[in-house]
Amino acid sequence: MSVKTYIESNKDRFIEELFSLIRIPSISAKQEHKPDMEACAKRWTELLLAAGADKAVVMPTEGNPVVYGEKMISQDAPTVLVYAHYDVMPAEPLELWKSQPFEPEIRDGRIWARGADDDKGQAMMQVKGFETALNLDLLKCNVKFIFEGEEEIGSPSLEDFCRTHKELLKADVILVSDTSMVSAETPSLTTGLRGLAYWEIEVTGPNRDLHSGHFGGAVANPVNVLCKLMADITDADGRITIPGFYDDVEEVSPAEREMIAQIPFDEAKYKAAIGVDELFGEKGYSTLERNSCRPSFDICGIWGGYTEEGSKTVLPSKAYAKVSCRLVPHQDHSKISKLFEDYIASVAPAYVKVKVTPKHGGQGYVCPIDMPAYKAAEEAVAVAFGKRPLAVRRGGSIPIIATFEQVLGIKTVLMGFGLEQNAIHSPNESCTLDFFYKGIESVAEFYKRFN
Amino acid sequence: MSVKTYIESNKDRFIEELFSLIRIPSISAKQEHKPDMEACAKRWTELLLAAGADKAVVMPTEGNPVVYGEKMISQDAPTVLVYAHYDVMPAEPLELWKSQPFEPEIRDGRIWARGADDDKGQAMMQVKGFETALNLDLLKCNVKFIFEGEEEIGSPSLEDFCRTHKELLKADVILVSDTSMVSAETPSLTTGLRGLAYWEIEVTGPNRDLHSGHFGGAVANPVNVLCKLMADITDADGRITIPGFYDDVEEVSPAEREMIAQIPFDEAKYKAAIGVDELFGEKGYSTLERNSCRPSFDICGIWGGYTEEGSKTVLPSKAYAKVSCRLVPHQDHSKISKLFEDYIASVAPAYVKVKVTPKHGGQGYVCPIDMPAYKAAEEAVAVAFGKRPLAVRRGGSIPIIATFEQVLGIKTVLMGFGLEQNAIHSPNESCTLDFFYKGIESVAEFYKRFN
Repeated sequence: MSVKTYIESNKDRFIEELFSLIRIPSISAKQEHKPDMEACAKRWTELLLAAGADKAVVMPTEGNPVVYGEKMISQDAPTVLVYAHYDVMPAEPLELWKSQPFEPEIRDGRIWARGADDDKGQAMMQVKGFETALNLDLLKCNVKFIFEGEEEIGSPSLEDFCRTHKELLKADVILVSDTSMVSAETPSLTTGLRGLAYWEIEVTGPNRDLHSGHFGGAVANPVNVLCKLMADITDADGRITIPGFYDDVEEVSPAEREMIAQIPFDEAKYKAAIGVDELFGEKGYSTLERNSCRPSFDICGIWGGYTEEGSKTVLPSKAYAKVSCRLVPHQDHSKISKLFEDYIASVAPAYVKVKVTPKHGGQGYVCPIDMPAYKAAEEAVAVAFGKRPLAVRRGGSIPIIATFEQVLGIKTVLMGFGLEQNAIHSPNESCTLDFFYKGIESVAEFYKRFN
Repeated sequence: MSVKTYIESNKDRFIEELFSLIRIPSISAKQEHKPDMEACAKRWTELLLAAGADKAVVMPTEGNPVVYGEKMISQDAPTVLVYAHYDVMPAEPLELWKSQPFEPEIRDGRIWARGADDDKGQAMMQVKGFETALNLDLLKCNVKFIFEGEEEIGSPSLEDFCRTHKELLKADVILVSDTSMVSAETPSLTTGLRGLAYWEIEVTGPNRDLHSGHFGGAVANPVNVLCKLMADITDADGRITIPGFYDDVEEVSPAEREMIAQIPFDEAKYKAAIGVDELFGEKGYSTLERNSCRPSFDICGIWGGYTEEGSKTVLPSKAYAKVSCRLVPHQDHSKISKLFEDYIASVAPAYVKVKVTPKHGGQGYVCPIDMPAYKAAEEAVAVAFGKRPLAVRRGGSIPIIATFEQVLGIKTVLMGFGLEQNAIHSPNESCTLDFFYKGIESVAEFYKRFN
């Protein structure tokens, strides 16, 4: 039986299995979902065993548990370690969803749900691709699975887990499906990722909310101050002003810039898709460079003062922001984190108190395109998608990829099947059925080639 | 019977009557409290009649109703119009209250509740002072009462109400208790108020929240942009940069600056009371000038992006702020509102959409200190507080005071009994019992003198 035929005959079951995972709202950012994390991990062990793993267990960590599974073929065969995550982003703002985020629906050839792509959908492509290869007797390597439940909050427990279970996780290459392709027409493999640093900022002014009439003009307003602090972090050219921030940035080589310029990119379409009239970013770089090879600074959330209905006049006591920088290869996230803290401390005025709390961070990553596993992935995707995939750098961060390299000494091949229009992290996340099945096919074809 | 004795013999009833008003959560900023507005207005009519008014009715407006009451002594006597408001500010953040905002408590010689001072407490001093004067046969003028239910949202219906009921509201002077004294040791009467302009700002970037890894650096973040817009409104000297903003500002005369410098003011105490290490405001002016005679710009509220637990990486679609300027005499709030809108339109970058919605506004006010009613108030306060009150300008806004002058042609005497430590508009609003009774006494003594 061919790979395509096997997938075709099992496709409804594959969808049902995916839906059983999606229905568990495994939101790692919220404490109230702790039981869902456990339930989701347990469900994965059942699915791994059903797919043909010899073994699948839930292993505790300091935080949410890790799912570990394996299928050992032979001591002499190479080993692939498949990494994925079973946690998802919060679904807010809920009112913007056209169907319930945790009640998956199929409409217009797409699966609509939180996690349809990131990363339950893509993790399922890995497991069903493995099942397909195994049942068609194509598998020529050992396969280990490690699915974590804290990727969306920065994988705080996984590094320790890797250090503790180095032997268990021993492998020749790591395979990850958690990235996107350039477009439906331009299949691609991700060969670079940005790093990340994240901070929470709290600005405290007066010890209580004050009447803005009685105090306004005489007492510093912490929201005004926060806005000034945030405004000063980037200049008019879109560059980050923190001293030393660019010191370690890998400058994009002319050769790579030329390659990037060849990626099909329709700026008008890009703008229309996200509904903006103009783009803005660092002066001197193209959009594709800005969102993949250059660092960025984004305020992910801000709040303070009166935010309800009506117009309350108040000089608030507190203002908050959640901010992050995407980093590029050679920028060390702990170093950047420290630079940021030092910078804010140096510019914070004496009339407010400013507290910076570093949150999760991660290093960037570059994948060598001459690795056997990369070659196998490239050919596999070419078979499933009918076109040789481009090697491209992407702007997202999977900090754990750099950690795997440091702790386990293993390189990763990023074999992702997402698309920008899948709206991961946003309301109405989705994944096309077409890509879901082509992803499974690609993984099966990978196993056919990798030995 | 003396005024003091009358108050002493009725003090428990006065408190009970005040509590019956406070228990009605008449929050004008929230639609859900519509029934409470009606209930509070009705309660006031009962209390006015019980205090000795000939008549007290609830009169409809486009918004919340107005309470009108009157006691007519003689056609030949002068008439005082007492203005107050029965609506209160929202009580959020609720978790900071030591007792329930709408369940008044007496602790440490203070009444603790939303509205204990602003303005249920002070309005009650007026009505109980009136009752005292009437029952002791001291009243030598006609008294009219107009209590509105929309002061905290900018009195949107009161101007129309005044225009429609000009004859009914005819009076020689307006008496208002809705301001504060300099301190418990320094009684004062307010002779100037700041004006107000208020706007809501909405910045829209992409049409949905985006993944900050995939788009960050290439697409303008509306929170980043909002912070820049807000930051640019004031400069390093604390001055507002909007072109034309200071054109009509009345410069404080050297004589008045000298008078202000004589107001007892302990900067160390002031800072300690609000818990800040340093003060910040417009260069070249003292704190008391900054918060009374100089305009200010405050962000009253800001929000956008992810503001819940955890560290979500997102490039948000929208960012919002509620902002206000306190204005000083001669600054016209509609002109300033237009200047602000034009300024934002002129600086808003093309990569976001910026919408400015003007909310309520009001003009500043100055009270002549040679009016007979001002003299009567000055003497009355001197009797009750044992010290001649200072004439001072304050930083708050009661926009309707300027409207009264324009529409009804009547000047107002601001006979306020608040104190900064009463924390109006904040959690744990309070009023001392001492001031509550002295306020009543002052009002009764006012009526004894005014004819």
